[in-house]
Amino acid sequence: MIKTDMLIIGAGPTGLFTVFEAGLLKLKCHLIDALAQPGGQCAEIYPKKPIYDIPGFPEILAGKLVDNLMEQIKPFEPGFTLGERAETIDKLEDGSFIVTTNKGTKHHAPVVVIAGGLGSFEPRKPLIDNIVDFEDKGVSYIIKDPEVYKNKRVVIAGGGDSALDWSIFLADIASEVYLVHRRNEFRGALDSVEKVAELSKLGKVSLITEAEVTALQGNETLEKVTVTHKDKGEIVLEVDNFIPLFGLSPKLGPIADWGLEIEKNAIKVDNSYDYSTNIPGIYAIGDVNTYKGKLKLILSGFHEAAVMCQSAYQRIFPDKKYVMKYTTVGGIQGFDGTKKEAKKEVVKSIV
Amino acid sequence: MIKTDMLIIGAGPTGLFTVFEAGLLKLKCHLIDALAQPGGQCAEIYPKKPIYDIPGFPEILAGKLVDNLMEQIKPFEPGFTLGERAETIDKLEDGSFIVTTNKGTKHHAPVVVIAGGLGSFEPRKPLIDNIVDFEDKGVSYIIKDPEVYKNKRVVIAGGGDSALDWSIFLADIASEVYLVHRRNEFRGALDSVEKVAELSKLGKVSLITEAEVTALQGNETLEKVTVTHKDKGEIVLEVDNFIPLFGLSPKLGPIADWGLEIEKNAIKVDNSYDYSTNIPGIYAIGDVNTYKGKLKLILSGFHEAAVMCQSAYQRIFPDKKYVMKYTTVGGIQGFDGTKKEAKKEVVKSIV
Ligand SMILES: Cc1cc2nc3c(=O)[nH]c(=O)nc-3n(C[C@H](O)[C@H](O)[C@H](O)COP(=O)(O)OP(=O)(O)OC[C@H]3O[C@@H](n4cnc5c(N)ncnc54)[C@H](O)[C@@H]3O)c2cc1C
Ligand SMILES: Cc1cc2nc3c(=O)[nH]c(=O)nc-3n(C[C@H](O)[C@H](O)[C@H](O)COP(=O)(O)OP(=O)(O)OC[C@H]3O[C@@H](n4cnc5c(N)ncnc54)[C@H](O)[C@@H]3O)c2cc1C
Repeated sequence: MIKTDMLIIGAGPTGLFTVFEAGLLKLKCHLIDALAQPGGQCAEIYPKKPIYDIPGFPEILAGKLVDNLMEQIKPFEPGFTLGERAETIDKLEDGSFIVTTNKGTKHHAPVVVIAGGLGSFEPRKPLIDNIVDFEDKGVSYIIKDPEVYKNKRVVIAGGGDSALDWSIFLADIASEVYLVHRRNEFRGALDSVEKVAELSKLGKVSLITEAEVTALQGNETLEKVTVTHKDKGEIVLEVDNFIPLFGLSPKLGPIADWGLEIEKNAIKVDNSYDYSTNIPGIYAIGDVNTYKGKLKLILSGFHEAAVMCQSAYQRIFPDKKYVMKYTTVGGIQGFDGTKKEAKKEVVKSIV
Repeated sequence: MIKTDMLIIGAGPTGLFTVFEAGLLKLKCHLIDALAQPGGQCAEIYPKKPIYDIPGFPEILAGKLVDNLMEQIKPFEPGFTLGERAETIDKLEDGSFIVTTNKGTKHHAPVVVIAGGLGSFEPRKPLIDNIVDFEDKGVSYIIKDPEVYKNKRVVIAGGGDSALDWSIFLADIASEVYLVHRRNEFRGALDSVEKVAELSKLGKVSLITEAEVTALQGNETLEKVTVTHKDKGEIVLEVDNFIPLFGLSPKLGPIADWGLEIEKNAIKVDNSYDYSTNIPGIYAIGDVNTYKGKLKLILSGFHEAAVMCQSAYQRIFPDKKYVMKYTTVGGIQGFDGTKKEAKKEVVKSIV
């Protein structure tokens, strides 16, 4: 059982920044995300695109914003359960919660913060009858640890940035990489497309276009993948892994059944105070919440996180009084022992 | 008469970022600030100190944050009335406002946004009877345009960063710089103190410590300053300018009499929606407002600015419907003709 002060569901920009605001209050955080990496929409949908409306950044790539947030929260040592979906929630007698993922991991905390954005990112799966039988036995929809593919024979399917980028990355690690796509044209960043073309010429990535994976075979684990080509018919490849990368789409999913007040596919919160939901002890911040005038913007998630943490602190420590100090004045005391603080002024005689 | 879509009182971080959010909605802004430079508390009180809780910046100097915000809003060409205090407001029959400063400058806009922070920064004045007679006639408490002091004989008074930094800066411009301070010890950034010590040795700044300016003389404009030394008695200096830099302290000031609902020295707003005040058409955002759970943090001002602009837009254009577009998707179209946008994806055949 993972224990923490604040359990955050969703490691998008909102969930990540929450770790920082909680850390200022000396609260420890643990984050659950269905994705293999932190960053939510910024990391999954548009990591290489610029955002222009993050205050103080005339321009910043979405992926770089996530990197910066990870660096900013590092002193507060967040825990992560990645690649798992928060599935069920149970309220204990003392008012605390146990949240269990689809893989059975249990988390216990007095406060739960839902920063679930547009929902848990779920893979679009290809329509192959027995694909579920091979999930985690050779078939994966997201890549959590690339080292798993060391010296393996891997089939990647898809025609977008993820398929291109992982083909490039795994070309150095796997023993064989097949990239299967229904069309000849790929859609992605120019340099990714060009790099795959180059690897294909060097024989490091085997391109099979105008084709689809249509069948899977194996005892226990995956052994063979059947690729059906538009003109040439079926090809059977002996491989260890099949990674269909047809994009992930967010679904509010199981959270919709937790008894929270839902409106327009989002969670209603009290924005006149602390972004609490109708269940005491559960807050909802960022894209996942709704209220009058709500803007689904990153900067709003940041503000909501800061305000929410003050209320969560009072809930966890009803008898303590927290006096806010500016970070400039009080500095940052990391849980990891690091310290940051402004240089002190000197009082010095000149004459 | 200066005309604009949104008149912003206060050019602190909140007021500055408002220009950006308004610009996305194609609204033009003009800012009034009592200070000579934009940036509010960040620029006036702690420009060289780090802030740790601006989301996405593990650390940023307050002055650098202001520079970044100025760059971010540049495409939206804000107007500035600096070094003047917004004094009175009049509501016209059509619901629009005229705001007049203490120097008589008039501004007309359909919407007024008060982003006044802790109040208008007002100088702490030395207790010299006739000092008001020489204000703007040789005596200034803030430096709007350093070129004014070219080849002038200048007396600066004070023992903090402003006095140190302006002595350093004017040493190159003015013909003579006297720095008068009550003690031998100065309080400021180490390098500023050391630099002044060096300039004093080189004879570029004349230090007079354990002394105070006690009298001013002149016909029409300032001509002589009397400095009283602890032991040596009175010294009379023939000079053109006297700049007492004893710090600026914020005062809510005239805004308190505009008929706005005031609580704890701040303006009450409707935080459950759009940060509007009790007077339709006047909003209050940033440190200057108050509501349940309010945090006087820079990141809160940013969120409040974004939400407020949507409501202000509806007020100015009741019949238009604005559909928000992510900046990543829609890019930035500056009023100055500049454009920023994300690189388009390519669709390209590899085989
Ligand atoms: C193309 C594009 C461009 C954009 N441009 C801008 C822009 O310019 N400016 C701007 O401010 N915003 C922009 N946005 C919106 C911005 O990305 C979102 O506002 C922001 O990502 C919301 O952050 P969040 O942390 O609230 O949610 P998200 O980023 O959506 O993260 C939520 C995370 O929660 C996880 N999750 C949800 N439910 C569960 C569960 N049950 N179990 C486990 N994990 C779960 C999801 O997998 C996801 O990773 C853009 C969005 C897109 C798609
Ligand atoms: C030492 C110190 C350290 C801080 N550290 C942090 C930190 O680490 N993190 C953080 O988030 N915040 C910090 N703050 C607070 C932060 O600076 C404020 O929250 C922020 O400046 C508020 O921005 P604002 O634009 O709302 O108001 P301000 O910055 O106060 O700007 C308001 C401006 O309005 C002008 N004004 C007001 N009334 C009038 C009028 N009638 N006419 C003309 N002009 C007027 C003022 O002159 C002023 O320039 C710190 C503050 C201080 C003093």
